[in-house]
Amino acid sequence: MENSNTDEYFMKKALQEAEVAFEKGEIPVGAIIVVENRIIARSHNLTEMLNDVTAHAEMQSITAAANFLGGKYLKNCTLYVTLEPCQMCAGALYWSQISRIVFGARDEQRGYMALGTKLHPKTVVEYGVLEAEASSLMKRFFLEKRK
Amino acid sequence: MENSNTDEYFMKKALQEAEVAFEKGEIPVGAIIVVENRIIARSHNLTEMLNDVTAHAEMQSITAAANFLGGKYLKNCTLYVTLEPCQMCAGALYWSQISRIVFGARDEQRGYMALGTKLHPKTVVEYGVLEAEASSLMKRFFLEKRK
Repeated sequence: MENSNTDEYFMKKALQEAEVAFEKGEIPVGAIIVVENRIIARSHNLTEMLNDVTAHAEMQSITAAANFLGGKYLKNCTLYVTLEPCQMCAGALYWSQISRIVFGARDEQRGYMALGTKLHPKTVVEYGVLEAEASSLMKRFFLEKRK
Repeated sequence: MENSNTDEYFMKKALQEAEVAFEKGEIPVGAIIVVENRIIARSHNLTEMLNDVTAHAEMQSITAAANFLGGKYLKNCTLYVTLEPCQMCAGALYWSQISRIVFGARDEQRGYMALGTKLHPKTVVEYGVLEAEASSLMKRFFLEKRK
């Protein structure tokens, strides 16, 4: 297990991805996947640019990490994502058997926790890491959208 | 709404995709997406070949249909899939706001119904179309795997 300083370090990298999404007019969510303190995937939400509801940051990072590892199971991997995963992404994480998920802000309406999506029993979850930063980026995005 | 003959016609096309998956050594699930009686996407499970847990038949068809339509919402579209969608695929279908889902066989263990994944309120679901054929293909696959 990484210590909380390391979690903040990696979550900052995920937040940088979320900022790139923001600049592209995408709902600002960023994700990275780490194995043995090494970043093996980084991505941000691209649903608008790709016209594809499946192009969430997590989905892209799962595919990229599996490609890097040469296998579909994300053993010993940690996903850092700025926002709580949705049903789709949690469902994909279930199949991946990922070891650990760290997310920033809760998504009370569409997050997997409220909706009861089942993760793999091997998966450990932590949240709240840089939560304020992730929430503030989301709020800024929706405020600008309304203008 | 299409009549049941039409549903069987399109489900046969999905089953043909499942058979292609079978021949490739993939868990045999096939999917197609139809709009106004026209097939705009066809796909089969490719998780083994692509080493990617996200490469379910439904996910590929959602991406392909959105690409064909030039928009990410699958309005007036029907997905035909041989097996009940999982949490991930049901989560993606939620985001797509697809009009109708028709599936063949139930998946009592990992299907979205047992696991309580939420679909979009606009989505109508029917199942049991060519169920015996879809089940028999799955059973044959797992029997051969055990040999």
